[in-house]
Amino acid sequence: MSAGEFDLIARIRARAGTRADIVLGIGDDAALLAPPPGLQLVVTADTLNAGVHFPEDSAAADIGWKALAVNLSDLAAMGAEPAWCTLSLSLPQSDAAWIDGFLDGFLMLAARYGIVLVGGDTTRGPLSISVTAMGLVDPGHALRRDGARVGDDVWVTGTLGDAAGGLALLDREPAHALRARLDRPTPRVEVGRALRGFATACVDVSDGLLADLGHISSRSGVGAQVDIDALPASDALMATFDGATRVPLQASGGDDYELCFTAPADARERIDAVFSQLDLRVTRIGRIVAGEGVQPMRSDGEPWSSLRRGYDHFAER
Amino acid sequence: MSAGEFDLIARIRARAGTRADIVLGIGDDAALLAPPPGLQLVVTADTLNAGVHFPEDSAAADIGWKALAVNLSDLAAMGAEPAWCTLSLSLPQSDAAWIDGFLDGFLMLAARYGIVLVGGDTTRGPLSISVTAMGLVDPGHALRRDGARVGDDVWVTGTLGDAAGGLALLDREPAHALRARLDRPTPRVEVGRALRGFATACVDVSDGLLADLGHISSRSGVGAQVDIDALPASDALMATFDGATRVPLQASGGDDYELCFTAPADARERIDAVFSQLDLRVTRIGRIVAGEGVQPMRSDGEPWSSLRRGYDHFAER
Repeated sequence: MSAGEFDLIARIRARAGTRADIVLGIGDDAALLAPPPGLQLVVTADTLNAGVHFPEDSAAADIGWKALAVNLSDLAAMGAEPAWCTLSLSLPQSDAAWIDGFLDGFLMLAARYGIVLVGGDTTRGPLSISVTAMGLVDPGHALRRDGARVGDDVWVTGTLGDAAGGLALLDREPAHALRARLDRPTPRVEVGRALRGFATACVDVSDGLLADLGHISSRSGVGAQVDIDALPASDALMATFDGATRVPLQASGGDDYELCFTAPADARERIDAVFSQLDLRVTRIGRIVAGEGVQPMRSDGEPWSSLRRGYDHFAER
Repeated sequence: MSAGEFDLIARIRARAGTRADIVLGIGDDAALLAPPPGLQLVVTADTLNAGVHFPEDSAAADIGWKALAVNLSDLAAMGAEPAWCTLSLSLPQSDAAWIDGFLDGFLMLAARYGIVLVGGDTTRGPLSISVTAMGLVDPGHALRRDGARVGDDVWVTGTLGDAAGGLALLDREPAHALRARLDRPTPRVEVGRALRGFATACVDVSDGLLADLGHISSRSGVGAQVDIDALPASDALMATFDGATRVPLQASGGDDYELCFTAPADARERIDAVFSQLDLRVTRIGRIVAGEGVQPMRSDGEPWSSLRRGYDHFAER
């Protein structure tokens, strides 16, 4: 089914929803928003390209979900409350059924976190989805990458490696259970909210744990030691891969969208209580040390190395 | 010259600049901004794809300029003050020289209007540039599409048809003078600012005058009559095309990024004064009438029709 550009925009507009702070949503040259007074604005932008960020055979609804999820994950890593987003959609051809499916996934996730689509454009081109997400946070309460201090614990939420495992199996077992994690990551918005005020630094695990913890390390001017054997794995990952294959997926695989954060050692009880209330696994995986760089090591203290430390979109493979 | 994703981001970050209201720019999971209290936020997003929105042979600096210009034009059409933007850049390969050229154009225009790049991403994919631009405006002062009233004059800034003329000549004369208008449009930010408070509606001419005025018409619930023979043309356009070819370019050609606005008839003197001060041509091209739709007519009152009324990215051609 083919539809013109303005028909597509009308389809999107009809389903976009609203919030009390939206003066003017989709339909003018720009959206007009009334941010609540006294809050800071948190802004992030991430693009997904077909064949690079999602398998070419992905369902439209999964693509819609993931395009928003990766941006919500960045807001989560800042401890921000999701508010508004824009969507720039390039499509090889106008396809109303595809758009409807895409919106099913995108808007289901948007509704869950109270974020509303306020603008963007649709245009012809290779399949590509760019989202800019905006959130709000009290001044001084944003979770940043640059606050880790020597002696802090390093923590990670949930489990690592599922998305990379699903990707590794894509050619042989495209419908493997791990693929769900690749297609529909859960942004840890509630976690980011709960960590405000006591986590000293936070980052989302999008490029791989070691690479992303490296951002905390470099921005904070500290080093980090990570116990590779302590990295949490899902039962599905454990059942699918042996340790030699699994651990690199956990340490360096991208697309998990868990949060990695640092906090002082005296916050351990509070962290246990917070995650018990969130009903989410949290694992202490290392500590912040003087120096620079991330040192992965085995539980016995031996250094660990993997050829691939994180995801670089331009790396030769 | 090849560079990794993080090298590209470092290159961009080093040149991005800052503003007093940026708490945290590029380098964290998201930017952190402190909007001035009491203002409304204006947000727009537009994507450029190679071969669709700019010729494949375009210089990197021209692409950078245009990617920001089309977004600034939307802020201008709202009467907003440009503040911050994000940039999502998909590149077939990592190329530091291309990025440097792109930034030359993008940041030259950004500096001119005081807008600062605060985030985004670079990724592998067919050449595509998505920008989200944010601006600020006093509550109640934004220029919208829905305020035109019966009896208002319809005005347009500058001249129309140059960009479409440059595009029409692309195969035969790729270096024709009109191409500059296609490659480096001027966003009418100062005009939008000057129109706040007395223009009743405003839109930027990106898809073609008749199509864009149609948005004012439909959003305002009014009709519009346009004197096709009154549409302003540049000397270069007049010298290049005869009237039969030229007028459709002016009426329906996209990519001019002039502003089309409506204002009550008693504002004519003020408009003349404003544009005299801006040293910019402004032309009264029609009026708002009861009814619906845009009626293009010749100066003698005969209806005018063109096969192509505006630019639809998905239209069959």
